[in-house]
Amino acid sequence: MPKLTKASKKIGLPPGSLVHVGDNKTEKVRIKLIDYDQKKFQEKDLKKIEESFPFKKNPTVTWINIDGIHNTDILSKLGKYFEIHPLVLEDIVNNTQRPKMEDFGDYIFLVLKMLYFDEKKKEIDSEQVSIILGHNFVISFQEREGDVFDPIRDRIRNKKGRIIKMDADYLAYSLIDAVVDNYFIILERAGEKIEDLEDAVVKDPKPEVLQKVHKLKKDMIFLRKSVWPLRELISGLQRSESKLIKKTTGVYLRDIYDHTIQVIDSVETFRDMLSGMHDTYLSSISNRMNDVMKVLTIFASVFIPLTFVAGIYGMNFNPEVSALNMPELNWEFGYISVWVVMILIGVSMLFYFRRKKWL
Amino acid sequence: MPKLTKASKKIGLPPGSLVHVGDNKTEKVRIKLIDYDQKKFQEKDLKKIEESFPFKKNPTVTWINIDGIHNTDILSKLGKYFEIHPLVLEDIVNNTQRPKMEDFGDYIFLVLKMLYFDEKKKEIDSEQVSIILGHNFVISFQEREGDVFDPIRDRIRNKKGRIIKMDADYLAYSLIDAVVDNYFIILERAGEKIEDLEDAVVKDPKPEVLQKVHKLKKDMIFLRKSVWPLRELISGLQRSESKLIKKTTGVYLRDIYDHTIQVIDSVETFRDMLSGMHDTYLSSISNRMNDVMKVLTIFASVFIPLTFVAGIYGMNFNPEVSALNMPELNWEFGYISVWVVMILIGVSMLFYFRRKKWL
Amino acid sequence: MPKLTKASKKIGLPPGSLVHVGDNKTEKVRIKLIDYDQKKFQEKDLKKIEESFPFKKNPTVTWINIDGIHNTDILSKLGKYFEIHPLVLEDIVNNTQRPKMEDFGDYIFLVLKMLYFDEKKKEIDSEQVSIILGHNFVISFQEREGDVFDPIRDRIRNKKGRIIKMDADYLAYSLIDAVVDNYFIILERAGEKIEDLEDAVVKDPKPEVLQKVHKLKKDMIFLRKSVWPLRELISGLQRSESKLIKKTTGVYLRDIYDHTIQVIDSVETFRDMLSGMHDTYLSSISNRMNDVMKVLTIFASVFIPLTFVAGIYGMNFNPEVSALNMPELNWEFGYISVWVVMILIGVSMLFYFRRKKWL
Amino acid sequence: MPKLTKASKKIGLPPGSLVHVGDNKTEKVRIKLIDYDQKKFQEKDLKKIEESFPFKKNPTVTWINIDGIHNTDILSKLGKYFEIHPLVLEDIVNNTQRPKMEDFGDYIFLVLKMLYFDEKKKEIDSEQVSIILGHNFVISFQEREGDVFDPIRDRIRNKKGRIIKMDADYLAYSLIDAVVDNYFIILERAGEKIEDLEDAVVKDPKPEVLQKVHKLKKDMIFLRKSVWPLRELISGLQRSESKLIKKTTGVYLRDIYDHTIQVIDSVETFRDMLSGMHDTYLSSISNRMNDVMKVLTIFASVFIPLTFVAGIYGMNFNPEVSALNMPELNWEFGYISVWVVMILIGVSMLFYFRRKKWL
Amino acid sequence: MPKLTKASKKIGLPPGSLVHVGDNKTEKVRIKLIDYDQKKFQEKDLKKIEESFPFKKNPTVTWINIDGIHNTDILSKLGKYFEIHPLVLEDIVNNTQRPKMEDFGDYIFLVLKMLYFDEKKKEIDSEQVSIILGHNFVISFQEREGDVFDPIRDRIRNKKGRIIKMDADYLAYSLIDAVVDNYFIILERAGEKIEDLEDAVVKDPKPEVLQKVHKLKKDMIFLRKSVWPLRELISGLQRSESKLIKKTTGVYLRDIYDHTIQVIDSVETFRDMLSGMHDTYLSSISNRMNDVMKVLTIFASVFIPLTFVAGIYGMNFNPEVSALNMPELNWEFGYISVWVVMILIGVSMLFYFRRKKWL
Repeated sequence: MPKLTKASKKIGLPPGSLVHVGDNKTEKVRIKLIDYDQKKFQEKDLKKIEESFPFKKNPTVTWINIDGIHNTDILSKLGKYFEIHPLVLEDIVNNTQRPKMEDFGDYIFLVLKMLYFDEKKKEIDSEQVSIILGHNFVISFQEREGDVFDPIRDRIRNKKGRIIKMDADYLAYSLIDAVVDNYFIILERAGEKIEDLEDAVVKDPKPEVLQKVHKLKKDMIFLRKSVWPLRELISGLQRSESKLIKKTTGVYLRDIYDHTIQVIDSVETFRDMLSGMHDTYLSSISNRMNDVMKVLTIFASVFIPLTFVAGIYGMNFNPEVSALNMPELNWEFGYISVWVVMILIGVSMLFYFRRKKWL
Repeated sequence: MPKLTKASKKIGLPPGSLVHVGDNKTEKVRIKLIDYDQKKFQEKDLKKIEESFPFKKNPTVTWINIDGIHNTDILSKLGKYFEIHPLVLEDIVNNTQRPKMEDFGDYIFLVLKMLYFDEKKKEIDSEQVSIILGHNFVISFQEREGDVFDPIRDRIRNKKGRIIKMDADYLAYSLIDAVVDNYFIILERAGEKIEDLEDAVVKDPKPEVLQKVHKLKKDMIFLRKSVWPLRELISGLQRSESKLIKKTTGVYLRDIYDHTIQVIDSVETFRDMLSGMHDTYLSSISNRMNDVMKVLTIFASVFIPLTFVAGIYGMNFNPEVSALNMPELNWEFGYISVWVVMILIGVSMLFYFRRKKWL
Repeated sequence: MPKLTKASKKIGLPPGSLVHVGDNKTEKVRIKLIDYDQKKFQEKDLKKIEESFPFKKNPTVTWINIDGIHNTDILSKLGKYFEIHPLVLEDIVNNTQRPKMEDFGDYIFLVLKMLYFDEKKKEIDSEQVSIILGHNFVISFQEREGDVFDPIRDRIRNKKGRIIKMDADYLAYSLIDAVVDNYFIILERAGEKIEDLEDAVVKDPKPEVLQKVHKLKKDMIFLRKSVWPLRELISGLQRSESKLIKKTTGVYLRDIYDHTIQVIDSVETFRDMLSGMHDTYLSSISNRMNDVMKVLTIFASVFIPLTFVAGIYGMNFNPEVSALNMPELNWEFGYISVWVVMILIGVSMLFYFRRKKWL
Repeated sequence: MPKLTKASKKIGLPPGSLVHVGDNKTEKVRIKLIDYDQKKFQEKDLKKIEESFPFKKNPTVTWINIDGIHNTDILSKLGKYFEIHPLVLEDIVNNTQRPKMEDFGDYIFLVLKMLYFDEKKKEIDSEQVSIILGHNFVISFQEREGDVFDPIRDRIRNKKGRIIKMDADYLAYSLIDAVVDNYFIILERAGEKIEDLEDAVVKDPKPEVLQKVHKLKKDMIFLRKSVWPLRELISGLQRSESKLIKKTTGVYLRDIYDHTIQVIDSVETFRDMLSGMHDTYLSSISNRMNDVMKVLTIFASVFIPLTFVAGIYGMNFNPEVSALNMPELNWEFGYISVWVVMILIGVSMLFYFRRKKWL
Repeated sequence: MPKLTKASKKIGLPPGSLVHVGDNKTEKVRIKLIDYDQKKFQEKDLKKIEESFPFKKNPTVTWINIDGIHNTDILSKLGKYFEIHPLVLEDIVNNTQRPKMEDFGDYIFLVLKMLYFDEKKKEIDSEQVSIILGHNFVISFQEREGDVFDPIRDRIRNKKGRIIKMDADYLAYSLIDAVVDNYFIILERAGEKIEDLEDAVVKDPKPEVLQKVHKLKKDMIFLRKSVWPLRELISGLQRSESKLIKKTTGVYLRDIYDHTIQVIDSVETFRDMLSGMHDTYLSSISNRMNDVMKVLTIFASVFIPLTFVAGIYGMNFNPEVSALNMPELNWEFGYISVWVVMILIGVSMLFYFRRKKWL
């Protein structure tokens, strides 16, 4: 389960304090700069954040990607030079943010949740991506190395597609698009698991199956928590009157908006299906219980009367005292008659249960 | 179950890439052109999409229907000539779209879900229909051959009804209307199945019955997912200020809007009824369990005491040692008395259970 | 259960086709005309619809009531003369409409659901009433003879109340009011049934009781489906800027709006109560099961140990071989001791169960 | 349970007919008039409603309170003189109204539900209070004698508080405030009952406890039905642009609005808690059932094998025929060995159940 | 459980009456005054509230904090001097308020709920904090000593952070921020408990576990009741056009708004998870019951037939009367054959149960 809240470290500090909230990553911070327009292309790994400062005023689009948000020193310098509000920096280093969009005039601040399926832990893993979209530059912050943006880098490098002709807002859009695309992979995996579970729930209602159902339910709750605010974020961008968002980008935002609606739709459908599976599970258990009880009842109801009959003729009443005392024991066909009676009883019981459709 | 999402093929491609998402159909693409006004009528199967281009500027209404969306080549040519936005083409080839309406000024783009009951698989089958409504032309895209539009074609051919007097927007309306009409057939079948299941749930609560209930529930979820956005689509068309939508079409859109509301209403009612059936099923099982337990309890409670009595007189205490040791065995009416006692016990037990209304 | 959808007959026909949807009534269509103002009053049964045409332009209020909507011939003539849109006629003959209000400028079209309790079938029966409110005339269409409008006719005949002083819109309001008043009767009956069931659910949780609860739930779903859109209909009339609705009628519409809200409120309350009853039913069953199990457990737990004791002394170990073999059998007080032991066991078991509050 | 609807008496009458709906009260109608301003104070019981008419035009605030709404004669006279719309009078005599506020220009009409706990019947009792707020006068209608307004009368008599300095709208506000204050008492009682039930539900899950839970649930539904529309009523007054509502009263309305929100909040919280209690009740029953079953299973599983062993050595195979026939019976330590075996079986069973944590 | 309503003490008093609602605190009221700007700093404990009056007109920011709201005398004096509306004072002394914000022009009145985890009672404890934000002053009222504001006091004392440069509205913001920060601590604790319970619910479904789940559910309901209105409060401040709220504070309010949304999100997620745990608990119990029943059924079904067989050969039919009477007793291998038969029966039963996967 992804952490829900881990904010206690910060309690009592003044607002705007740069305290990294999240697991303390000790890896080195990596800064990668990509600078491009239709003609030029430049890509380099920076050692110091200061190397990126000259690009701020270039007319080309500059993308500064920072992996690692625990080095608050780098962030302060960046914040000072790019004139970013302290509360924004505070949000960047606190990885428990909700996806949101805030327009600060000179730049737009975006928070996204990048989700991917961790193959080792068999869990959905979440990473916060913060994006600052300024005039001609995009700064993205990630918690650790590894992301879903490589296809975008390739497209820029290979001058493929529209991206190199467009402005910084299109780059920001591409980043959001890449994040949303990944949600579909999560959904596909969930869909496959649901199909697997659907059979298991009816045929083999073990507690583990139910736990898997609940695990998926929690995943869906988690995905939903990431997507709902994303929808507001995108419609915020659409409605935004900021000069940073060009008119031509509108149609792409509409497209991505449709995608988030699709994700939300699927999440809701999956939740409905998982609830249905829980109900099926419960009634499967009830059915099993019914089966168990029927077996017990049939065995007990057939043999208890028979045992009683056998018990009768195990009594030691003294036939010598009186001819009324268990004369059957001395009948020639006594034993056989008892067997006949017992078989009749047994057969009629079975017949009775068959008529009740228990057999 | 209809596929919910199958978008992973596209991950990482630039937006606007024409990649067919859906099962790869290998059938040939079929293009059918119908061109008509009140006087003229022309219908032909096109071999090349280019044959349709001259019709674009005709004053007559032109309906180009394309069965098969996997041939992205045809789509690109069409898109270029009819000046359709790449994102629209991308949506057309991706069959996981949500129904929606987008106004691009020169044309309106509509996505619908055509649902029909597949008699072989006994399942609801879904096919995406994309419609481009332009000035004097309608282009419709379907995933495969076979559709619900034949009555419309007949009406055009036979110059029946209003359709030949009206503009392209009326043709587009007729297509939507045909799709919505088919939803009613799905609903009727579901209604019949629900009536069948209602008895079964009370009288014969087998797991299969529950599975059928859940199957119908999922169908309703699926239908709902197609109709809710359709409602927005139609109210979008109603509110639209596009010149492509004539005033006279307004009343027809209102009619079709009423139909979608009716479908939504019925879907919600069916869902309520299916939930009720699930509850009934669960309580039927509990009732059955109660019956099983009563049978067991009655048999056990009647015969266990009797067996105990028989067990008593099966004991081998030595009457010769003391007159206190099982003197009953030597009584003249001992055996008969025991029978009387046992019958009394049995009858009083039955009486007790009858008073408890278990018999 | 009232039919939910039966629209398949019409699939494929052009919009505006007059095809009667509903059970085919073979009864003759009855047309009744009432014409009145403060001074004049005229009432006659028409043989031909054409007889009503001259009244259209009279300054008096004319009410044409048509029982039977299967004769599409009459409707076409009427539609032509009174200039009614084909889609309206189509809605009139299709008895699966949702209550709605449509303003066509020259006339307002209303669809209502008249509900009454069918005493024979013990079911709620539903009939669609369509009303066309024009300038100085009201045309009402019903599926069959018999309605809830007789008090209105009496009031007109006897010149009682406000109705003869008011315009056609007040007549239309009176018709809606009569329909809504009848909903209260349905609610009262439902309320009485609910009170009856409340006891039964606790004291006698039989499957039939649950079925009655579900029947009522479905009735409430059905009633709700008729009333919710009615509320929109009335608030539509209230907000309407049509000249056909006089200002003085506003306060009456507000009154009727309050009534529909009351109906909706009661329906929701009843649904809550019925859900509660379902829960009570389930827990009553569980309680019964508990009682059954307790009886079984007490009988089994008391007598199984006793039978075991009796079984012990029924063993045939040979006391002659060794004095260790069942010496109890030869004790003087052996038999009595065993009885004492068994009674002690039995009593202590009962004591144990009493302490557990099972007795 | 308070009556939900009882409107059938009125069906078929023209709107505006004064027919008392509710139990027919035979008590005499009591009319009390209080007339005051900062200097004067007058209080009298009226015999005829006509005695109140001269006060209508006084500049002082006049409060006419009428206990008993079944005397329609008084109402008609009052209605005529104070120019009250017939539909308002109709609403006053019909005690099934929903709380609402209607602005008629010259006066504002309010309907409230006064709730109090009937100590005898141990039930919430409801009484409809209708208020007409006019220029300088307030007329209040109650179903029967006895109300929650005595503190207000005292404050007027004793010239305590703001009330004598303010206009008629403040008097109307005070009446609403008194009604809302009483809701808190209902809530407190409900809260106490809930605390009592919370223990009972876990420790003693008897059907009566569940019935009490459901009774409280119904009370909450009922309270909610009275408070939700009250909230609209008050916000209606707040937004009202009527001259009858002075600006200075705004802050008091805001206060009372907060109170209704508090009531709604508490009702919702109580409903959540009662639902939780229902769930707890169900699982308590399941737990009890589990306990019962465990007792049965332990007794049966321990003693049934032992009884079987005893049964074995009760068989009568003839040892004289063959040494293979039950040689144990002739062993010296046969009987003791059997006891050892049986004790071992019994102990190991108990050990097994202890390991399963059933003991 | 925190008290929900305790308003009955006030019933019948005129609005604006200062009656302390809540437990009667006998502690002395403590008044602390902090006065600061960028240069000056002054902090003192006041003995009389009158000592604070001169600070009202100072240009410095003055923070008067009052611990204890039961001394209505102090409040009246304060109210009179600072011109606070009587209804505000009434709200301050009544600790059952909902969080809310009211703008009175000259000052803004805020009510908050300060929540902290009481380590002794192991419960969430709640305290009402009322804040009056005026021009250059903030007055805060708490129910008792001890609060979450010490870090703010430290920051002012040590001239740390932005606070000393900003106006009174920033101080008010800081107080709200401190309250909201504490909600995260409550959430963290709840999160930890939920993780603990998740295992227990599956592995050890005891009633106490369920009670803990319900306890947490109630805590979440309670937290929710405090946070939802807080959200409205903050967005009220954001939208406020009061001069008391400076533009520069807007971004901080947006930040705190995000935090409340995060709290709400987490509360909803926790509620979903707790509901899921309840479901898991119920199905765990059902599974346990199934296990119990299986053990019983296996024991009973295996041994009851065997006991029957043993019972057969315990019958005393007289072999001397007829060779048909129990000839088996005299067979040489009779006893051994019976053992073989019984072992076969037992083994085949076990085999049968294994095939049913009950073993």
